[in-house]
This record gives sequence, structure tokens and C-alpha cells, in this order.
Amino acid sequence: MPQFQLIAFDADDTLWPNQPHFDHVENQLATILAHCGDPAAIASRLYEVQRRNMHLFGYGAKSLMLTMIETDIQLTDGAVTGVEIQQLLDLGKRLLDFPIEPLSGVVEVLTELKQRGQRLMVLTKGDLFDQESKLARSGLGDFFDLVEIVSEKNAATYRRILARHGVPAAEFLMIGNSLKSDILPVLQVGGQAIHVPYHTTWIHEEVPAEQLVGLDFYSVDALTDVLAYLA
Amino acid sequence: MPQFQLIAFDADDTLWPNQPHFDHVENQLATILAHCGDPAAIASRLYEVQRRNMHLFGYGAKSLMLTMIETDIQLTDGAVTGVEIQQLLDLGKRLLDFPIEPLSGVVEVLTELKQRGQRLMVLTKGDLFDQESKLARSGLGDFFDLVEIVSEKNAATYRRILARHGVPAAEFLMIGNSLKSDILPVLQVGGQAIHVPYHTTWIHEEVPAEQLVGLDFYSVDALTDVLAYLA
Repeated sequence: MPQFQLIAFDADDTLWPNQPHFDHVENQLATILAHCGDPAAIASRLYEVQRRNMHLFGYGAKSLMLTMIETDIQLTDGAVTGVEIQQLLDLGKRLLDFPIEPLSGVVEVLTELKQRGQRLMVLTKGDLFDQESKLARSGLGDFFDLVEIVSEKNAATYRRILARHGVPAAEFLMIGNSLKSDILPVLQVGGQAIHVPYHTTWIHEEVPAEQLVGLDFYSVDALTDVLAYLA
Repeated sequence: MPQFQLIAFDADDTLWPNQPHFDHVENQLATILAHCGDPAAIASRLYEVQRRNMHLFGYGAKSLMLTMIETDIQLTDGAVTGVEIQQLLDLGKRLLDFPIEPLSGVVEVLTELKQRGQRLMVLTKGDLFDQESKLARSGLGDFFDLVEIVSEKNAATYRRILARHGVPAAEFLMIGNSLKSDILPVLQVGGQAIHVPYHTTWIHEEVPAEQLVGLDFYSVDALTDVLAYLA
């Protein structure tokens, strides 16, 4: 039975649904901007603007709101209306206060691990203010001994977090839905990782299959399978 | 000679100028929106929109950008133009990559404290991604043993940070320009604080004089005066 000094959970799309809300906003954007082109053209322009602004804006809802507005300006050649821009603002604001419902199995798994005396962390990337608000809205805060919100989850980030909390990499387990952020960099620093796939993944988080060849990590269908693995 | 296990520095307007850049943006906003009213009316509407969105957007440049756009929509009764909204976006983007020059005395003080073997922290509130970028751009990163970026600096925040790093409140010194964020809550939890006033303060950070009566903290004219206090 593997023992871990620290088990960390990703938050978005691991503890609660997030990407579906962003997907919904992208669909709504296509409806609002239907007069500018088809959904594929709008999505493609949005992603292009997003990538260009990533070094300035980072991730998250506020970043997406600014990106949607800039996309609107580009697609309309500047012929925006106040009504439309306000629609985009209101659409984005809903991303900042939607109700947070834990995903299936989350409360069961956290309750059981907590009862076993396991030290638990939330380790999520994104906007600090927004992620703190989501954790509070989720009602899951009390399960966690530690909360770390970071701007990027790469090998350097994991090394820093482990050093800060004095946890040897071999005694660290990360559980999350993103191969790019939750699995690959953890294996790189010598930790263990369990992948819990989610049905939708942000294009920015996708990983080419060839990068996964030969890597040693578990993948479970349901989060509750983690309990059997750890028992 | 007072000894501290940990000395923390605020970042914006303590280590480097920040508010002047925001003030500059607000002046530029008044110029761009001059067709909607005088600078006082624009500033007042901006602050009103800002306060209403604070619970969703938090602090920082992206928050201000969204707020400026919403202010524009309100002041023009929806008669915005793409050119104008893009001007606001470009104005805000400059807040996310302006060059960071340490304030006078900062390098001297950090160098000296580091030579004395003092453990140092940056403790700043704001947007995670933006604050990390500013610290990197400042070139000051190597002076600090710890970096904490938080969404709010209140008594609960300071208690959490001190507990996390195992520092007794009595052995903690905070140095910063904001009475509201850097001084009052630190005294409240039993730490010590040195106020280094900066020539301009965001209205949201102002503290009524009566709240300061009877409080025990130092105020220095120049950051370098801290060295004499600690020697």
C-alpha cells in the first residue's frame, strides 16, 4: 500500500466542473457574434487573440473576458456596440460566480482520506482571486491542510511547492485531469501522479500522445478508484 | 537591537512604483473619455463601477481594464466605438508590462539585510500572474527567501502566512506603504510594522486618521532609515 506524505488535488475539472462553463461561454460568444462569422471562425480567432495575450493576461475568466472583447473588435473591424460589449462582460462575469458543485465521488474520497489522517492539498493554477472564491463556494475548504494557487504548473513549480512544505518528491502524489499540468511535470520531478480524465479539455492543455509513451502513471475512470489504489 | 525571524516587504509602492502607473492610466482615461464629461466625473464613475465589481474582479490591472470598458459603456450610454475600446485595452496592457525600477534605497536595504543573514519575504496582494511578472522584471527576486502573493491582506491572511512558515507574530516585521494592508492588520495579530509612506495612495487603501490613534508602529521617511532601526 503506497503511503504519501502529501496528496494534492487539482481543482478545476478534478474537484468541480469548470471547462463546461468556459465551453458554454464560448458557445454563447458564437451566438452573440453570429453576425461576424460561423462558430469555427470565431473560436479560431478567439484562440489566436488568447495566445497572443497569454504572456500578459495569464489564465482565467478575466483574461477570457478581455480576449472576447478584443476578438469582437477584430471580427467587426471596430464596429462594436455598447450593448454587445456589455453582453460579453455579463457573460464573463457569470464565470466568476457560478455555483460550485463538487464532481461525483469528490466528497466521498476527501472524507475517506481525511479519516485516514492523510495530509491533503489543493494545488491549482489560475487567477488567485477567482480560485480562492471557487474553493470557498465549493464548501470543500475544510478538507485541505494546504492551498496553493500558482500561475503555472510546471516542473519548477512542483519543485518549489515540495521544497516549501518539506515533502520529498517520492512521497508526493498529484491527482488531476490535465496530463500537461498535473501528470507530466510531477513525473519529471520524481513524484507520482494519478490521471482522472475529464470529458472536456481546454485546447491549451492537450498533450500529443507520443509524449506519453513509456511514462509511469495511473489513470482511473472514476475518482473513487483512487481509494482502492491507496488502500 | 530588535531581531526578527522574518521581515516581509510589500511590493507595489514599497519596492517599486506602481500607483503612479495606475494614476497615469486614469489620467489617460480622462483624456480618451473627455467627450463624456470632466475628469472628476469620469474618476467618480470609474470608482463606482470598480467598487461594484470588486467582489468579482479583485484588484489589479485586468480588473481595471474591465472596469474602464464598463465605465465607457455607461458614460456613452452604449455609444462606444471599437477604436475607443481598443485604446482602453492598449492602455491597460501597458500596466502589465511596464519596466520595473526599484525605488530609491531598495537595493541598498535588501543587500544589507541579506548580508546580515536576515530571512526576507515579499508579501504582496493583487493578481498572481501580474505580481510574479513584476517581481521577475524587477530583478529583485534573488533577495527573497519567500514570496507570498495573496488576494487580500487582512489579519486572517497574516495569521495564515505566519502559521505556514512557523514564525511567531512577535518575531515578524512587515514593511510597507499601505496603512490599511501593511500596518493595521499586522499590529492586530501581534507583529511589528514599519510604515514607509509613498507620495500617492489608491483611494481604496486610505485609512481615516482616527483609526491610527494609539497604535504602536514606526514610520520612516526613507526606506534606508529601516537599516538604522534594525542595527
